[in-house]
Amino acid sequence: MKIAIAGSGALGSGFGAMLYRQGYDVTLIDGWEPQATAVKKDGLHIDINGEQHHLNIPMYQDTEIPKDAKYDVIFLFTKAMQLHDMLQHIQSHIHDNTIMVCTMNGLKHERKIANYVDEARIVRGVTTWTAGLESPGHTHLMGAGPVEIGALVEEGQPNVDTVFDILEKAKLNPHKSEDLQQSIWKKICVNGTANALCTILECRLSNLNESDYARKLVYKITQEIVQVATVDGVHLNADEVYNYLIDLNDKVGPHFPSMYQDLINNNRLTEIDYINGAVAKLGAEHHIEAPVNQFVANMVHAKEEQRHAK
Amino acid sequence: MKIAIAGSGALGSGFGAMLYRQGYDVTLIDGWEPQATAVKKDGLHIDINGEQHHLNIPMYQDTEIPKDAKYDVIFLFTKAMQLHDMLQHIQSHIHDNTIMVCTMNGLKHERKIANYVDEARIVRGVTTWTAGLESPGHTHLMGAGPVEIGALVEEGQPNVDTVFDILEKAKLNPHKSEDLQQSIWKKICVNGTANALCTILECRLSNLNESDYARKLVYKITQEIVQVATVDGVHLNADEVYNYLIDLNDKVGPHFPSMYQDLINNNRLTEIDYINGAVAKLGAEHHIEAPVNQFVANMVHAKEEQRHAK
Repeated sequence: MKIAIAGSGALGSGFGAMLYRQGYDVTLIDGWEPQATAVKKDGLHIDINGEQHHLNIPMYQDTEIPKDAKYDVIFLFTKAMQLHDMLQHIQSHIHDNTIMVCTMNGLKHERKIANYVDEARIVRGVTTWTAGLESPGHTHLMGAGPVEIGALVEEGQPNVDTVFDILEKAKLNPHKSEDLQQSIWKKICVNGTANALCTILECRLSNLNESDYARKLVYKITQEIVQVATVDGVHLNADEVYNYLIDLNDKVGPHFPSMYQDLINNNRLTEIDYINGAVAKLGAEHHIEAPVNQFVANMVHAKEEQRHAK
Repeated sequence: MKIAIAGSGALGSGFGAMLYRQGYDVTLIDGWEPQATAVKKDGLHIDINGEQHHLNIPMYQDTEIPKDAKYDVIFLFTKAMQLHDMLQHIQSHIHDNTIMVCTMNGLKHERKIANYVDEARIVRGVTTWTAGLESPGHTHLMGAGPVEIGALVEEGQPNVDTVFDILEKAKLNPHKSEDLQQSIWKKICVNGTANALCTILECRLSNLNESDYARKLVYKITQEIVQVATVDGVHLNADEVYNYLIDLNDKVGPHFPSMYQDLINNNRLTEIDYINGAVAKLGAEHHIEAPVNQFVANMVHAKEEQRHAK
């Protein structure tokens, strides 16, 4: 079974390393030339929960995948705004039974992926594994997961089983989600509050909990997300989700969320359009207003412009 | 005619100085002990549009106004959150015909003032004079106004005429507002966008114009304010107000608005509850939602808490 990791930055190379160490035939693919060059030349140096590993995993830049290469399972791990380009690059390497796995943050990636494979071959999910990239070829993977996965349509269930087995053998701690859409929307609540607010207020997750007013911001964003989630048949209780989020912020207190790291530390564009922006857009499609989520997305974009983020 | 300036910080002492220089019997009053002590000891040092003045204007801290003192005209120039306390301190110094002048930023200060004098004796307005306080006893006044004033009720017109004459003699450039409520709401649009956004994004007014997304934030806040303004019979066109605001930001480009100076430079609490917060609250009283203004108010409060502002 040939596995490709399409998007082998921080989290992608982490998953790739875990799979490779179990003996899977893994190929890393990434659009960022320095990362591809470094791994091709000197392998992947990865710290997995404090343990150092040096792995010679095959790697291609997305523009140089061998013409005849076909993959059976493709894990998508790009930044949300790079997904379209990556799908274009890998489309000729998909065969009739290729399974596409997407546990990326954000809403409705499956709409894009469904242009390339039918819905039954898309395994969608969310994960709480976290990762970072120190320099090209040097990354780390932290946590214990889980990876929650599920099928978009009933016929996709066997493919979920296949991916579950792969992830389980690789100790990536898979769970079969009892309600895939609910798992996705709960993760949107996490990212739509913590990522956006820590980036705007330039603070740690614990700082949100310390402020009565920041907690009101968390609540208001959550309330709108919960309303829009109903269009996917997901019925969350805003108070319950809010309490879950506050509890989560306590647990990961000193951490700066990934969006903060992208924009404030590294001056990179954020995924805000796929989180709060996507909530507002999906809401608008169904006549459910989410003005605060749209405002938050524009606020983060204003900060990107202010900082000339790329 | 005895005139008191109730709230003699930056702008109040500026108005006081202009009146005093025309020979008016002016008394400065302020709640901040260092300011009162400095002016009592060594007079007011004030820079008026680049000219230095040293004026021995009588000054009292608000707790030590002589018991029998009565004032004919009282200009209110406190921070919005200090207005209630100041009114308590000066109430025994108001006589049956005292005129109260309020050109402070923010909505509905007249509701508080009307607990002390009837509406006909309140002269309400807005001003574009700007001022600053370098240290106790040392301030500056900049600009050329105008001060737009008007009556809340028809019977108040003679009092507007009286205040107009005083301001005109003192070269404070008064205008009689053709539509007082409209003037107030236009100023709310200015403060609700420029002050709030420059404080959240920590930027200059010109920076708002440079960003497509910051301009969207300006537009959205304005749109909600215009909707709420209808409860006061004020009908503004959101596009026209938006163009006026963008034009204004261009003109005063390098300037940091007063709220930015309060919170970011001086770690002081802001007047946000009397601007965006007041818009949301007044809207709620009349079943007009203004979620973005409420969110902006909570965001500024979260920043106040983060910075332990006082």
